Amino acid sequence: MIAGGLARQWYVACRSAHLRQRPLARTVMGVPLTLFRTSAGPAALLDRCPHRNVPLSMGRCSDDLLECRYHGWTFNGSGDCVRIPGLDGSTVPGGRTGVESFAALEDRGWIWVCPTAGPAPPRPAVTWPTGDGYSQVYRSMVFEATVQAALENTLDVPHTAFVHRGLFRGGGRAPMAIDVTVRHLDGGVEAVFEGESRPAGAIGRMLARREAVVEHADRFLLPSIAQVEYRLDRQHVVITSCFTPISNARTALHAVASFHTTMPAAVVRALVTPLAEVVLRQDARILQAQSRNVERFGGPRPTNTRIDVLAGPIGRLRRQMDRGEPASGDGEQRLVLYT
Amino acid sequence: MIAGGLARQWYVACRSAHLRQRPLARTVMGVPLTLFRTSAGPAALLDRCPHRNVPLSMGRCSDDLLECRYHGWTFNGSGDCVRIPGLDGSTVPGGRTGVESFAALEDRGWIWVCPTAGPAPPRPAVTWPTGDGYSQVYRSMVFEATVQAALENTLDVPHTAFVHRGLFRGGGRAPMAIDVTVRHLDGGVEAVFEGESRPAGAIGRMLARREAVVEHADRFLLPSIAQVEYRLDRQHVVITSCFTPISNARTALHAVASFHTTMPAAVVRALVTPLAEVVLRQDARILQAQSRNVERFGGPRPTNTRIDVLAGPIGRLRRQMDRGEPASGDGEQRLVLYT
Amino acid sequence: MIAGGLARQWYVACRSAHLRQRPLARTVMGVPLTLFRTSAGPAALLDRCPHRNVPLSMGRCSDDLLECRYHGWTFNGSGDCVRIPGLDGSTVPGGRTGVESFAALEDRGWIWVCPTAGPAPPRPAVTWPTGDGYSQVYRSMVFEATVQAALENTLDVPHTAFVHRGLFRGGGRAPMAIDVTVRHLDGGVEAVFEGESRPAGAIGRMLARREAVVEHADRFLLPSIAQVEYRLDRQHVVITSCFTPISNARTALHAVASFHTTMPAAVVRALVTPLAEVVLRQDARILQAQSRNVERFGGPRPTNTRIDVLAGPIGRLRRQMDRGEPASGDGEQRLVLYT
Repeated sequence: MIAGGLARQWYVACRSAHLRQRPLARTVMGVPLTLFRTSAGPAALLDRCPHRNVPLSMGRCSDDLLECRYHGWTFNGSGDCVRIPGLDGSTVPGGRTGVESFAALEDRGWIWVCPTAGPAPPRPAVTWPTGDGYSQVYRSMVFEATVQAALENTLDVPHTAFVHRGLFRGGGRAPMAIDVTVRHLDGGVEAVFEGESRPAGAIGRMLARREAVVEHADRFLLPSIAQVEYRLDRQHVVITSCFTPISNARTALHAVASFHTTMPAAVVRALVTPLAEVVLRQDARILQAQSRNVERFGGPRPTNTRIDVLAGPIGRLRRQMDRGEPASGDGEQRLVLYT
Repeated sequence: MIAGGLARQWYVACRSAHLRQRPLARTVMGVPLTLFRTSAGPAALLDRCPHRNVPLSMGRCSDDLLECRYHGWTFNGSGDCVRIPGLDGSTVPGGRTGVESFAALEDRGWIWVCPTAGPAPPRPAVTWPTGDGYSQVYRSMVFEATVQAALENTLDVPHTAFVHRGLFRGGGRAPMAIDVTVRHLDGGVEAVFEGESRPAGAIGRMLARREAVVEHADRFLLPSIAQVEYRLDRQHVVITSCFTPISNARTALHAVASFHTTMPAAVVRALVTPLAEVVLRQDARILQAQSRNVERFGGPRPTNTRIDVLAGPIGRLRRQMDRGEPASGDGEQRLVLYT
Repeated sequence: MIAGGLARQWYVACRSAHLRQRPLARTVMGVPLTLFRTSAGPAALLDRCPHRNVPLSMGRCSDDLLECRYHGWTFNGSGDCVRIPGLDGSTVPGGRTGVESFAALEDRGWIWVCPTAGPAPPRPAVTWPTGDGYSQVYRSMVFEATVQAALENTLDVPHTAFVHRGLFRGGGRAPMAIDVTVRHLDGGVEAVFEGESRPAGAIGRMLARREAVVEHADRFLLPSIAQVEYRLDRQHVVITSCFTPISNARTALHAVASFHTTMPAAVVRALVTPLAEVVLRQDARILQAQSRNVERFGGPRPTNTRIDVLAGPIGRLRRQMDRGEPASGDGEQRLVLYT
């Protein structure tokens, strides 16, 4: 796994609602972790009891403590061993009985962890609209793909006409020219699309009048967040996709869609949720096929054209962060995309 | 995989009848290919889109072209990229957008490919009787075995009494001496068996009178074809088995049985087809067991006796072809086999 | 696999009752074997026909001989090839047609083998009571675990309160101090537990009065045998667990419980058998989790405390046997365990 600056960042480990009384096992950048709750907040420990090496995530929690399933060794949220059953209770040998702990926090519906020991990084900065009239839908999924491939997929316009044919774009009409502007952000990069008419396909027809003008921006935010924003008619949708590398070949997606629409939120939710499910499965299938083919051919060998607007900057910004270099930008770029 | 002269040969990739409107994925000697039809004949491209590396075999065909499932990059039968949706249609960047193509042809019921780029080899020379009164039955199957093990199995007489006990030979009677003559052919080797009486077992009883005299020849033809020919009474059967290496451990069989019998073809077909199925499954099972045991023991370590008449020549002829050396023969050999 | 002195020992390959007319395949210390019966006793051959390398265990036995499934090569219990069908029966080429044979014997309900060729070791010395009033129950199982981990599990008292909560110990009462004495045996080590009251939980309640005093000893015997002995009230139970390394990561357990109780044997059998099944499955599950976690973390990194009384001696005695060194002991040790 990548082991430089990218490993000293916050990643979403799971939804808040999924971490309850029982510990959870989650792997982040190749580091197997067990997550559990304490009164001081979520805790993340290395998922291996130092005694006989079984996963601590098989154990049980009570009183802010996690007890190993095999011999009952018991740990607090900092990874200190506070009880070894069978030994005189007052005596806990030092040092080698503790387990490594990792920074963890709960924020906006998710449990975040940093998979490198040491001081915690600054709180995650990504935001989305949560004010009056906005509703949120959360969704998590695992892709058999690298983070880079998953980010490119999420922030790519042309694939929607093929992978999601009939849902977004690709209704058979003549291609339409769209102006694209690529701008660097602080810790990211953004592509703004202008001149796009209402998307063809089911989702577009549901959300807007035929003559509606679309405002559309795709953003990449370090370390591995994709944000897609649409305004059309009086609708506003921001989809924030936080990708968590599990291993080099598997990536978890934790996404939240925040929307403000003229239709009641419950109606949008009921209509969009099953469509979003279809879209995510179509993406998961193509990413898996890509991943297996890359493995079969012994490595990726992509070809970029000028319309793969964010693929290059995503790779460069992530490599720079991993090496501890400052983020570099190319200045504003303009191009035309046909869709 | 073997990568010398053996890779510059024609191999059967699939049956003609199985390649229709949708592209097919087939791997030949470790090379993943996508096959599709054009008006100029079958086409075989490397099964990886140069853009994002997904398998082209997931795509769809129309107008002699193959369109990638992910972003719609479109290729002709020579592997040239002729359309990149999203880019101005008139502009296709050179060079790196194309995909490697391989020689392919359609012949006598099969699609053949050569898994090495470059000039196509001479057309496949193997023949079988197709004239008046002859009928053909085709069958394809995948074995978990090396090509060498599959060829030896197909051209081996003694195993029939054990693996196929009761179907061909091995009916409990006393062993019978058969004269075997081994002769070199142009690009192959042949064993002719004389003095064999009607095979015991169901298939024999079905085809001939008890006192019928059998004429039987087993042939190996480069690169990896096995041909078994029987004449008994007024029946004539030629089974041609073309083996295609998928990987070192998997081999596809594409077989055609051509027969001329006193019984109506439909009757023979109805009787022989299920029996052939049983025979092929018995062989597949023993080859899989052999293959797994060889892997478990870290490699093959065969022992040959003088009755393994074709095993040695098959290996030697294939190694000579792979190294580009002329085929050498041992002159005619005679021996006695008990069966 | 370990390949020194530990490989020149007897290991249980299977139950006597399971080796009947058909050959059995069993792997011991990475050596694939086929077992079959002859009138001179059980035979163990390397599970690979020298001809085409298929497993001999697919074959069939008759008249003290084993016949290969593929071409019928036939072997006696010493591994000599005595028949090659197809060759003139009187002629069997020397040397390379035979297969390696291994020492095998049948003793007290089990077939034992030594996975190293050469002179057989002295007969297995382990014993258990079989006299008047004693009954035996046999059980075999495969664990995904190393022999060391399986031995530690079987001879470990503290885990019973957690892995088998409610069945043996761990009924919620205050911990009780038990005196433990660790003594070296000839070719082993023993821990004797004194002051233990009747175990809490179902099995304890079934077997003894509340005020019963428990005599309890745990023994390790080279090369890989664990023996647990309980006396309480007038009950006497000796559980002998013979572990057979299949590979580094898999271990077979062949256990016999010998018991003398005040209740009728049939009643004890009916009550204890399903409970033992539950206990073994709980142990199998935790051992599998340990094994997979150790693999995921790239190797074991255990921490021992003074109450892991037998873990250290087991490892040391086994390493000494493997290197051919004499067994060393530490003299008698005393400690207190809370349970």
